[in-house]
Amino acid sequence: MLTLGTAPCVPRKAIDAMSDQPREIPDFSRPDGLVTAIAQDASSGEVLMIAYMNREALQETLATGRAVYYSRSRRRLWRKGEESGNVQHVRAVYVDCDGDAVLLRVDQAGGAACHEGYPSCFFRQLTPEGPKVIAQRVFDPKDVYGKGE
Amino acid sequence: MLTLGTAPCVPRKAIDAMSDQPREIPDFSRPDGLVTAIAQDASSGEVLMIAYMNREALQETLATGRAVYYSRSRRRLWRKGEESGNVQHVRAVYVDCDGDAVLLRVDQAGGAACHEGYPSCFFRQLTPEGPKVIAQRVFDPKDVYGKGE
Repeated sequence: MLTLGTAPCVPRKAIDAMSDQPREIPDFSRPDGLVTAIAQDASSGEVLMIAYMNREALQETLATGRAVYYSRSRRRLWRKGEESGNVQHVRAVYVDCDGDAVLLRVDQAGGAACHEGYPSCFFRQLTPEGPKVIAQRVFDPKDVYGKGE
Repeated sequence: MLTLGTAPCVPRKAIDAMSDQPREIPDFSRPDGLVTAIAQDASSGEVLMIAYMNREALQETLATGRAVYYSRSRRRLWRKGEESGNVQHVRAVYVDCDGDAVLLRVDQAGGAACHEGYPSCFFRQLTPEGPKVIAQRVFDPKDVYGKGE
């Protein structure tokens, strides 16, 4: 289960100016109640994707060991892999100095985090000639999400 | 120099519904004109920090090979290392499927990306007992930013 608290080193931004009390870590006090979440493959170190979490998503992630995000477009919890089966088993969660971002080290089921079928969502490199796909697809999105996707 | 364009595979969200024309990649059309930027150590794979870029910051990054972000608190370009000297030499830049996040693979000068003196901003792990510092400081912030920091 999630245990909130105060780290030995609390960044200045994490101190509430009015009360001088440490804020919750991570800090969900943004107007939208979200923190940014990065998922990284625990074995290869590859950065897989970026998403968002509200407090409930993080609590469920820590309680179950499976990555749960908050989908801003669907406005609900998004249990990663609920459609594709490509769940993320969470080995560890880290929080950044400002407290408004978390890093998940995960084991990616199915070998692909991206709904486009690539291992990582960062499958395009910016080159002098423009964006260039630098990865191989693991699955065809049509096979996983149906032809309507 | 930055070359904008269209990737062979343009995600649905990157298509402008009105014009049916592909959007710029990356996509700076958010109201604040920013994309999220992740910096990753090119050698170790460690995720170093998360920040933001506007179009100008990305263009300067690609033109100079040094990471330039947009500071939301200072509301200006933030040339990483301008105070600390801990610049980031950029080896490659990737863009994600939605086009609203970029990943920089960098060589981190000074061995520390975080203004708190740690190699990574993600120096705290969430544990059942609460947040716990799991990294060693490379520098003392007071030595780098002065006692006022």
